[in-house]
Amino acid sequence: MTARAGFVSLVGAGPGDPALLTRAALARLRRADLVLFDALVTPEIVALARRARRFSVGKRAGRRSMRQETIHALMIRGARRGQRVVRLKGGDPFVFGRGGEEALALRTANVRFEVVPGVTSAVAAPALAGIPVTHRGVASAFAVVAGHTPASFGPIVEAIAPGALTLVLLMAVAQQRAIAAALIARGWSPATPAALLFAASRGDADVWTGTIETLASGHGIRDDERPGTLVVGDVVRVRESLHQILEPVRAAR
Amino acid sequence: MTARAGFVSLVGAGPGDPALLTRAALARLRRADLVLFDALVTPEIVALARRARRFSVGKRAGRRSMRQETIHALMIRGARRGQRVVRLKGGDPFVFGRGGEEALALRTANVRFEVVPGVTSAVAAPALAGIPVTHRGVASAFAVVAGHTPASFGPIVEAIAPGALTLVLLMAVAQQRAIAAALIARGWSPATPAALLFAASRGDADVWTGTIETLASGHGIRDDERPGTLVVGDVVRVRESLHQILEPVRAAR
Repeated sequence: MTARAGFVSLVGAGPGDPALLTRAALARLRRADLVLFDALVTPEIVALARRARRFSVGKRAGRRSMRQETIHALMIRGARRGQRVVRLKGGDPFVFGRGGEEALALRTANVRFEVVPGVTSAVAAPALAGIPVTHRGVASAFAVVAGHTPASFGPIVEAIAPGALTLVLLMAVAQQRAIAAALIARGWSPATPAALLFAASRGDADVWTGTIETLASGHGIRDDERPGTLVVGDVVRVRESLHQILEPVRAAR
Repeated sequence: MTARAGFVSLVGAGPGDPALLTRAALARLRRADLVLFDALVTPEIVALARRARRFSVGKRAGRRSMRQETIHALMIRGARRGQRVVRLKGGDPFVFGRGGEEALALRTANVRFEVVPGVTSAVAAPALAGIPVTHRGVASAFAVVAGHTPASFGPIVEAIAPGALTLVLLMAVAQQRAIAAALIARGWSPATPAALLFAASRGDADVWTGTIETLASGHGIRDDERPGTLVVGDVVRVRESLHQILEPVRAAR
């Protein structure tokens, strides 16, 4: 028996820059006994959990990672030992983070928990590149899609009328050609602007822009290391007017 | 001539709880000379800008608010006077916040600026109610739509195949019946679960759940004061398993 009841926080770490952590996330990290973090969370953020034991639990496209059930078991075991457990995920915990499954596992185990929403890369990565996902007269809606396999993006591409809204595809770098080809086959104009956003908010951030036609032809940028987001739609053109003047967000300002 | 160059930060304030501000947003508020905030930003957050002159510039459905051009002029004037100006918006500045227009106005005026992404209510409001916008085997994508007028949601409802993804409609309270009726007319099953989320992350937060059929019949909750988000899709059912145990996020924990 422990004197203190354990507790799990499912926390979104945002896109990478520690300045884009929420205050709630920072408070959880500082008090944590145990942190289980995904591979995409930056070392600077993990280091904020000074008192905690910290374990990478993987979750990166194309790499081996811990089984989901093992992550559940580690969270539950920590909480049952009376620990403050932080399950730390890139972006927001409920946007392709399997946060819902983890919440259900905690519920089933009768472990107390909370969800701390984070800044999702689906919105922040375009914003930091000067691309608003909605823009008056250009796009009045956006859809967020997992881009890592044809099974993840294929049905969604079929379900949306060409050009109707901005598409944001997370984990989309490896499938960039297939995604662009699928959009053109679905009836999107080959001249539709597209942007690949690498490592948004980080020191090694990088942006490529072109069209889905150039992407489908294999003229995008392949990059198997940095996380990547693909944005498709006319909002990408807003960047042309903005990016020369945009200042990067920095914690110290 | 001023000794210091002015600067504008387009800042997302998140859904309302000051704990869901980013560290970057807090830093900007504390150093601001001038804050121009939307009506949906909570007083607790505005109060963090202790040294600043603070002005509400409106932007609330159904209320008179300042003309967009006047907001542009105030930002530009402040920056030209050498001030640190914060344009503070609910949620994220580029999700229906007209942030793109404001960025372009600043660019045209040759004023230096940055974008500080925030936690968008489109993801956080569902998450805090125990609803993951994506969930393995249930929804592999979500679309974010402005729900305040038939012109804003009508074309998007037409453009998406029924049931293909989770729909999140912001500013959707007033049009809840019309939205539900439009979805049913488009072919969505009347039994599709729906949730109305009021004042997410705030002390007066409230959640209604039902189906789009009950919404279309006028059995939702009308509320003209608190901000509201409508979520449509099977992910709403996850809440049934989670909400009894979920802890509200609080700054002080």
